[in-house]
Amino acid sequence: MIRFNSDYLEGAHPRILEQLASTNMAQTPGYGEDMFCDKARDTIRRLCDAPDADVHFLVGGTQTNATVLAAMLLPYQGVISADTGHIAVHETGAIEAGGHKVIALKNTDGKLNAGQVSECCRLHFSDESHEHMVMPAAVYISNPTEVGTIYSRDELNALRAVCDQWHLMLFMDGARLGYGLASPENTLDLPYIARTCDVFYIGGTKQGLLFGEAVVIRNAAIKKNFRYLIKQRGGMLAKGRLLGVQFEEILKDGLYFELSRHAVDLAMRLRDALRALNVPMLVDSPTNQQFPILPNVVLPMLREKYSWATIEQVDGRHTAVRFCTSWATREMDVERLIEDLNKLLR
Amino acid sequence: MIRFNSDYLEGAHPRILEQLASTNMAQTPGYGEDMFCDKARDTIRRLCDAPDADVHFLVGGTQTNATVLAAMLLPYQGVISADTGHIAVHETGAIEAGGHKVIALKNTDGKLNAGQVSECCRLHFSDESHEHMVMPAAVYISNPTEVGTIYSRDELNALRAVCDQWHLMLFMDGARLGYGLASPENTLDLPYIARTCDVFYIGGTKQGLLFGEAVVIRNAAIKKNFRYLIKQRGGMLAKGRLLGVQFEEILKDGLYFELSRHAVDLAMRLRDALRALNVPMLVDSPTNQQFPILPNVVLPMLREKYSWATIEQVDGRHTAVRFCTSWATREMDVERLIEDLNKLLR
Amino acid sequence: MIRFNSDYLEGAHPRILEQLASTNMAQTPGYGEDMFCDKARDTIRRLCDAPDADVHFLVGGTQTNATVLAAMLLPYQGVISADTGHIAVHETGAIEAGGHKVIALKNTDGKLNAGQVSECCRLHFSDESHEHMVMPAAVYISNPTEVGTIYSRDELNALRAVCDQWHLMLFMDGARLGYGLASPENTLDLPYIARTCDVFYIGGTKQGLLFGEAVVIRNAAIKKNFRYLIKQRGGMLAKGRLLGVQFEEILKDGLYFELSRHAVDLAMRLRDALRALNVPMLVDSPTNQQFPILPNVVLPMLREKYSWATIEQVDGRHTAVRFCTSWATREMDVERLIEDLNKLLR
Amino acid sequence: MIRFNSDYLEGAHPRILEQLASTNMAQTPGYGEDMFCDKARDTIRRLCDAPDADVHFLVGGTQTNATVLAAMLLPYQGVISADTGHIAVHETGAIEAGGHKVIALKNTDGKLNAGQVSECCRLHFSDESHEHMVMPAAVYISNPTEVGTIYSRDELNALRAVCDQWHLMLFMDGARLGYGLASPENTLDLPYIARTCDVFYIGGTKQGLLFGEAVVIRNAAIKKNFRYLIKQRGGMLAKGRLLGVQFEEILKDGLYFELSRHAVDLAMRLRDALRALNVPMLVDSPTNQQFPILPNVVLPMLREKYSWATIEQVDGRHTAVRFCTSWATREMDVERLIEDLNKLLR
Repeated sequence: MIRFNSDYLEGAHPRILEQLASTNMAQTPGYGEDMFCDKARDTIRRLCDAPDADVHFLVGGTQTNATVLAAMLLPYQGVISADTGHIAVHETGAIEAGGHKVIALKNTDGKLNAGQVSECCRLHFSDESHEHMVMPAAVYISNPTEVGTIYSRDELNALRAVCDQWHLMLFMDGARLGYGLASPENTLDLPYIARTCDVFYIGGTKQGLLFGEAVVIRNAAIKKNFRYLIKQRGGMLAKGRLLGVQFEEILKDGLYFELSRHAVDLAMRLRDALRALNVPMLVDSPTNQQFPILPNVVLPMLREKYSWATIEQVDGRHTAVRFCTSWATREMDVERLIEDLNKLLR
Repeated sequence: MIRFNSDYLEGAHPRILEQLASTNMAQTPGYGEDMFCDKARDTIRRLCDAPDADVHFLVGGTQTNATVLAAMLLPYQGVISADTGHIAVHETGAIEAGGHKVIALKNTDGKLNAGQVSECCRLHFSDESHEHMVMPAAVYISNPTEVGTIYSRDELNALRAVCDQWHLMLFMDGARLGYGLASPENTLDLPYIARTCDVFYIGGTKQGLLFGEAVVIRNAAIKKNFRYLIKQRGGMLAKGRLLGVQFEEILKDGLYFELSRHAVDLAMRLRDALRALNVPMLVDSPTNQQFPILPNVVLPMLREKYSWATIEQVDGRHTAVRFCTSWATREMDVERLIEDLNKLLR
Repeated sequence: MIRFNSDYLEGAHPRILEQLASTNMAQTPGYGEDMFCDKARDTIRRLCDAPDADVHFLVGGTQTNATVLAAMLLPYQGVISADTGHIAVHETGAIEAGGHKVIALKNTDGKLNAGQVSECCRLHFSDESHEHMVMPAAVYISNPTEVGTIYSRDELNALRAVCDQWHLMLFMDGARLGYGLASPENTLDLPYIARTCDVFYIGGTKQGLLFGEAVVIRNAAIKKNFRYLIKQRGGMLAKGRLLGVQFEEILKDGLYFELSRHAVDLAMRLRDALRALNVPMLVDSPTNQQFPILPNVVLPMLREKYSWATIEQVDGRHTAVRFCTSWATREMDVERLIEDLNKLLR
Repeated sequence: MIRFNSDYLEGAHPRILEQLASTNMAQTPGYGEDMFCDKARDTIRRLCDAPDADVHFLVGGTQTNATVLAAMLLPYQGVISADTGHIAVHETGAIEAGGHKVIALKNTDGKLNAGQVSECCRLHFSDESHEHMVMPAAVYISNPTEVGTIYSRDELNALRAVCDQWHLMLFMDGARLGYGLASPENTLDLPYIARTCDVFYIGGTKQGLLFGEAVVIRNAAIKKNFRYLIKQRGGMLAKGRLLGVQFEEILKDGLYFELSRHAVDLAMRLRDALRALNVPMLVDSPTNQQFPILPNVVLPMLREKYSWATIEQVDGRHTAVRFCTSWATREMDVERLIEDLNKLLR
């Protein structure tokens, strides 16, 4: 069985395991105050061209989103998100459990646009009722989005401008950031993101590490006492070094970007093949997640060899599915899938 | 200046004040454990034909909604509401501050329907991702809604059925319940509501009391230790008797319903006049709130004598406004308004 | 039956009810934005010699404590309190429900002292573990305390100094503030309190109003967007005018202080009588609450005419009780009680 | 430099790393629904003689405590803990951030006793004020405690009995459980603990894994929808298999207990040496943490070769410190320390 269900099916890139093994018996202070974390923090600051940034390592995405937003929001403030945003639908209400409303706006291909944010603020800050409504204070975007799309530099500039206008902070969830930066359509880079967002993170869990998300904070208000929040929200790993070791290994010489390109290249090959077969897509994604709408009739045959995530019934005869490539996907498996799709759909 | 801004512009019906004065020097235990509250609780149980109901008195609506939902929901559960629901937009995120997501569904004239609730549950309880999504556990409706519309017995029956199917509890916000029951289009009554909802409340603040909402609980799970939650959420009035005295006075001989009819009758007269003038309505409301869409050109003249709430700009030349009648509205003021509208719009 | 159970047994001073009646049909904006509240705010600023203070009116004490602390504390911060403090023991965990630890220190006659606060901070800000402990950010005191004692100017100066040293804010719960200021041992006054505390409140519920607490905020950080928190925590009264009317009436010409003196004078008479009878006191209180330790043998006889609050069994033969006077206590009732005590205990 | 600072200084036992490497490229479902987790769950149920137990794997201790207590407590309920309990002092208020009061009782050598719990309940459930106080609903103990002591079977039986009497649930934090079970003074075993506690966990982080805590739930009320809470609180590891692989490896053939014995044996040797030198102990611990009170004069010399955790200044000339052994401590390092102590203190 060849699995395209997600980008967290395997453990970690072998180099990560080797590095964990080679540092295993070193004695270090706990809680991220060790030399491995320090080194990884320096590497990230350098890659982001952000010498003043604070960098913290957390274990997983939901934990990271909840902790970062706890640092960004006062009790009466909320965060604006696309209605498809991970915090809006797939974190079991973690943000609300922290006391904050997710103000969900209708997405366009998984994205928010500046006009929506502006209109939302106009409504929430109106004279009549502002104190009776949650105060928007942050904008959450994911790049790539949950449906694989990416923000252009123009789109991000526009969001930044509307954030400045309404005194909002901008937070980018980069759980799959590498896959976004490796897209043929990408116009962003780490220094630009660090300059443009108040806070963002470089995802590790879905990008070749065992686990880990590296939070990069530029805004002083978010930096303040952030470690208290990590501890309180249960994200302070006793052996924090495990995060430092992993991030340093994958970032120090470009392995992160190399693995991301590998995954996206394979996804683009799959996209090309599906396009050539005139298979419609639920959303046009230029990254490692592909969402073809397949005829139900071919699914049983595919299911003998492959697995994937089912997204939704599109109509009585078609189903939207997700094929996900990753740092671990083998070229031959994608080729075999393409071959079988060609046989079944041509 | 004649004000139609809201139904909480004045103090209380004179009989309420008299009763507070006449009981003023009686010495009673605090926190709602006095004989006045006991008597009012009995009266409400009788009116609702619900001898087993628990009745609690709280001070205001936001407090009541937050406290009731704290009793209904476990930490990972959310409440389904129309996107126009008071808890969804006008309580500064009080429900989220209590840790719970408000799952907001698109309203139709301020209302939810059973089909939407069913579809929402189907999505949230799907195999793929149910643990990653908030678990729906309650449905919140307001009757009348925030835009003055009311649920029919058929609509409420359908909601009850879908709640039973998905193991949801049903909660009716009755901040303006009297104005709903007094509507010419009403098909509900207190015993039916008490039978059909797990919990609801009889609004006092907007219905002629100084303040106060009477919560009626049928479901044993919500009853349990409810007073702890009232205290914790800051709603336990030291001189709880003030609530008992007021509710007993307004309910004991039908004053509540009489005042409600008065307000609705005047609103219906205004509606008839607006209809006769072919003024379109933002929403067709059969209760004490009326939402005409007026030409901007007449607003300055009206503003010399009257005040109201502005809802939204409908287009460059029209504005939707809200005229609200109440237990305190004088017949002659509505007549004068109708006269002036006739002059300006005919 | 003559009741000394608490200072919230009756309604309100007659002048309060008269003023509510005489303003009853005035039409005002809701939520505390009316002229009655504005006037009362001005009166309070004048009495406190604090023209820059923000003044807000809330309904009850638990609600006020929870709302003020929500404005004072970030998520990882806690409040230091005596272990007898109302927030520590008698609010059903309202502060914790808002996410904050109450750091309870051992009381001395209901009070905290500066040395304790300093030691607590030294511990919490130590290098080894500060991020693993809650960060102290506020000190809560009540004056009078829950056991009737009061802070001297020297004690309060010392607390202020230690707060400044450790960057803590100082919050005084004045639910019974008038009874404190009317004590023969009092050395404080409103302008001094306003100068010394970051925030405090002037209690109304236990001091002759139907309900109400007037929060006086000096610190800009607490002032910011405070109304959002009032609304979110359920404390924004729709007919906010009721609070303004009451506070203005009781404060405009000194009625508040006159009623407080009345209660304390009667309590001091009772204290003198008990002292003359060599009755020991659980705590030596110079305000309206008295805590004699009475022989169990006299309790049944007293119980025929009087009621009170039982505090604790001191030993097999003695019980500590609380007799509470108030603005409403009649002189003759205290005289009768003294007479009976004399008969029983001499 | 030889470090005795804590039991989480190194990575993991080599067998753990090997197993992670050998399973690395297996493709599994995420979130703990894989075959490795299933197998480890079976192993734990077998070791606990608890075929009906639910077993969940979380990453760290604070996260585990917060998640378990979220499942145990309703909003108005609190948890009783020793004032030295980890949840009471060293989790940055994580439990309060979840809305619950930690009712901290004075510890005796880090432990709670049944009498204290009973007295606490008597007070909180008294007629006068129960609704105004947090309702105790759970008892939290750690075994070993934060100061290395352990509960006897008699002590635990007494706690269980008082829990039954007052309808409390019993929760054992076993972050160092192995070191407790390996103590020469231990009278407990896994099946007994599983029978006696409603929920407990088997610590991995401090016991030879990279990270991980295995929660064992017996009480059906805690079991219900527990995975929703894991996800919401940020503890659901995408590659949950990492936890299953590690726990299965360390538990399948007794490695866990072997490593625990190793650490405790070395600690007992150190204790014997300190006793022989008449060094007083801050607390008498029969597990892997030792708390000698050393003369300040010897500290600089020791500091040249060793590091440890400083606990507190006992007086002007003595300091209490903590030496911690672990699965990774080398025999020769303890011997060298003993030798040097003998030189310095004899």
